[in-house]
Amino acid sequence: MRAPYRYQILEVSPEELSHERDVYGSLADALRDLGEASLQTLVGEDEIREITGSVEALTARLRTHQIDGAYGVALTPEGLALNYGNAVVGLRNPIAPPVHVHRGGDGHTWADFHLNALYEGPPGLVHGGVVALILDQMLGECAADGGGPGMTGTLTIRYQHPTVLGDCSAEAWVTEIAETKTFVRGVLRDASGQETAEATGIFILPRWVRAKGAADEPASWG
Amino acid sequence: MRAPYRYQILEVSPEELSHERDVYGSLADALRDLGEASLQTLVGEDEIREITGSVEALTARLRTHQIDGAYGVALTPEGLALNYGNAVVGLRNPIAPPVHVHRGGDGHTWADFHLNALYEGPPGLVHGGVVALILDQMLGECAADGGGPGMTGTLTIRYQHPTVLGDCSAEAWVTEIAETKTFVRGVLRDASGQETAEATGIFILPRWVRAKGAADEPASWG
Repeated sequence: MRAPYRYQILEVSPEELSHERDVYGSLADALRDLGEASLQTLVGEDEIREITGSVEALTARLRTHQIDGAYGVALTPEGLALNYGNAVVGLRNPIAPPVHVHRGGDGHTWADFHLNALYEGPPGLVHGGVVALILDQMLGECAADGGGPGMTGTLTIRYQHPTVLGDCSAEAWVTEIAETKTFVRGVLRDASGQETAEATGIFILPRWVRAKGAADEPASWG
Repeated sequence: MRAPYRYQILEVSPEELSHERDVYGSLADALRDLGEASLQTLVGEDEIREITGSVEALTARLRTHQIDGAYGVALTPEGLALNYGNAVVGLRNPIAPPVHVHRGGDGHTWADFHLNALYEGPPGLVHGGVVALILDQMLGECAADGGGPGMTGTLTIRYQHPTVLGDCSAEAWVTEIAETKTFVRGVLRDASGQETAEATGIFILPRWVRAKGAADEPASWG
């Protein structure tokens, strides 16, 4: 496993980036669809068993040459995070919806995304923990966008209304920066635009980064 | 899509349950492994494209006969939740680790689980949002176990230390029950047993359930 906290610096051209997105993004998209299909399917058990065998065979092909452990996060010299393995935004991570987070450059992030059957908690509703999962990422990127990147110190989610599965959006704003802490507020909205949850978070620049100096801070921690 | 909040009552024998777990649980396990392999693989691009095509073909086979929308949650007459689609504990949900939550019967839950490369946030570490995702489920089931099932009202996570990906455990306790609110506290621990995050949550019995009467309350909301 790559050492925790280790950010590799990678020089990647825009063409390479776009090509990687095409190849690995297509595989992840296909796997997201396969995952949902596996939950929704009503095909017979013999067919399920045969498909399970085919899935295992594909896994074996992918595993003939691989890294061990976590994917890690690389940074471009410009500070762009290549966090393809991230559980919320990772291009190559089939469990990520994925959420494409837009940044305003002034401590403001927003995103539109779709939560399918894989994100269910109560029947037909987004899992409360998935709400927290996505808002944690939105708020963390917002803290980074506002100039104070950090790891989550405290996250509080207030659930106002159930969130029906489907199209959703989220938005976050930096509300205060105090020394090494950045305070952020964010909301989740359902397809109708109704606010269904509110999050407040405190993001803290870890001591080990402060000791090394600001030059090593990535633009994002996710 | 099944209507939000609708819990179907299903009579299922222990034999049927165990058989379903075997067939659909094996498919979900295979997909979890395929997902991680897709993130860790270093095989060539032609191979990736070919595997992507095979994944799409398997999806088409599963989709020849399927339900629309969310999987929903069924209840047995005994109150056991068949929440196979749940994003944290769902037997049939490939994005769920899955977490197998044990219940003490007196407002106490615990679980050991493994978080692989798919649950990454910062390099080598569990995503802060995944910590929240799992603790939300643990605390919600704990509230149900303590006699006061409900939907999450407020959830606060305090991150004490980074959580290294790998084996983890979680535990939760009901700390107070006040009318329609159940207060719960929980912790996440890493492989060494160190406490890395603490959660407090308030779970609330929704008005529409209170209006219908206690007989309709499921033993779990997840």
